[in-house]
Amino acid sequence: MDPFMQAAIDEAQRGLDEGGIPIGSVLVHQGRIIGRGHNRRVQQGSATLHGEMDALENAGRLPASVYRDSVIYTTLSPCSMCSGAILLYGIPKVVVGENQTFMGEEELLRSRGVQVEVLQDERCVALMRTFIERSPELWNEDIGE
Amino acid sequence: MDPFMQAAIDEAQRGLDEGGIPIGSVLVHQGRIIGRGHNRRVQQGSATLHGEMDALENAGRLPASVYRDSVIYTTLSPCSMCSGAILLYGIPKVVVGENQTFMGEEELLRSRGVQVEVLQDERCVALMRTFIERSPELWNEDIGE
Repeated sequence: MDPFMQAAIDEAQRGLDEGGIPIGSVLVHQGRIIGRGHNRRVQQGSATLHGEMDALENAGRLPASVYRDSVIYTTLSPCSMCSGAILLYGIPKVVVGENQTFMGEEELLRSRGVQVEVLQDERCVALMRTFIERSPELWNEDIGE
Repeated sequence: MDPFMQAAIDEAQRGLDEGGIPIGSVLVHQGRIIGRGHNRRVQQGSATLHGEMDALENAGRLPASVYRDSVIYTTLSPCSMCSGAILLYGIPKVVVGENQTFMGEEELLRSRGVQVEVLQDERCVALMRTFIERSPELWNEDIGE
C-alpha cells in the first residue's frame, strides 16, 4: 500500500471517528508529508474545509516552488473547489483514492496538464459508500446538491 | 454605487488595514448579506482563505437552495480555487469589481452557466495596483506564482 494514500485514509477515518465526512488528504513534497487534513464540515461548521483544502491549509503558506514539486493525495476525486485550489497552486499531480462514489473535476485537471492517477482503492470506496448510505443529506450538503 | 460591491470594498479595505491583501467579498441571498470576508493569508497564515472563500466560510453551512438563489460579490476576478467553490455550490451569479490587475477563471465560470458581471470599479483597481506595487512577492504567493 502506498504510504501516502494510507495516510490520507487515516485522515478520512479520523474524520469519521469525529462524526464527520470521511475524506482525507495529504500534501507530499519530495517524499515527505508537509500537510495533512480531513473534511471539517461537521467538526468546524466549515463550508470550505474539504479534505484537500484542510491539507493545504495545514501545510501553511508556501512558495510556488514547493507546490510545483508536490503531489496531493486524496481519498476521493476532488470537487471543483479542491481542483481549483490544485490549479491555483500549480500542483502537478493528484493521486485519487476512488472516483466511484463521486466524480470530481478530473477532466478539467487533465486538460490543464495535471497528472491524475486513480487507485480505485476499495477501502476508500467502502468508507464513502457506508457514509453516503447513512447520511445522504450531509453528503449532499457537502457537494452543493 | 452598488451597496454590495461597496461592502466588498469595505472588506478589502479592512484587510489592507490589517496588513493583509486587499480583496473582499460578500455573499448576498435575496438582497441580504449572509456572509462577508476578506483575504486572510497574512492575518491567519492561510493558504485557502481568499476573499471569496472567507465570505463563504463566514456564511457557514448552508443548504444548496440558498447558494442557488445567491449572488457573490468580489473586488477581484475570482481565481481557480474561488471559481471552483462558486461552481461547487452552484452560485448562479458573480459580480466582479475588476479584472485588470488579475484575470481569474471568468471564462470557465461562463462556460458552466454562471453569470459574470465585471464592474471595472476604479477603487478596486487602485487598491490592487498599489498593493501589488508595494508587495509583489506577497501577491505572487497568493496566486501561486
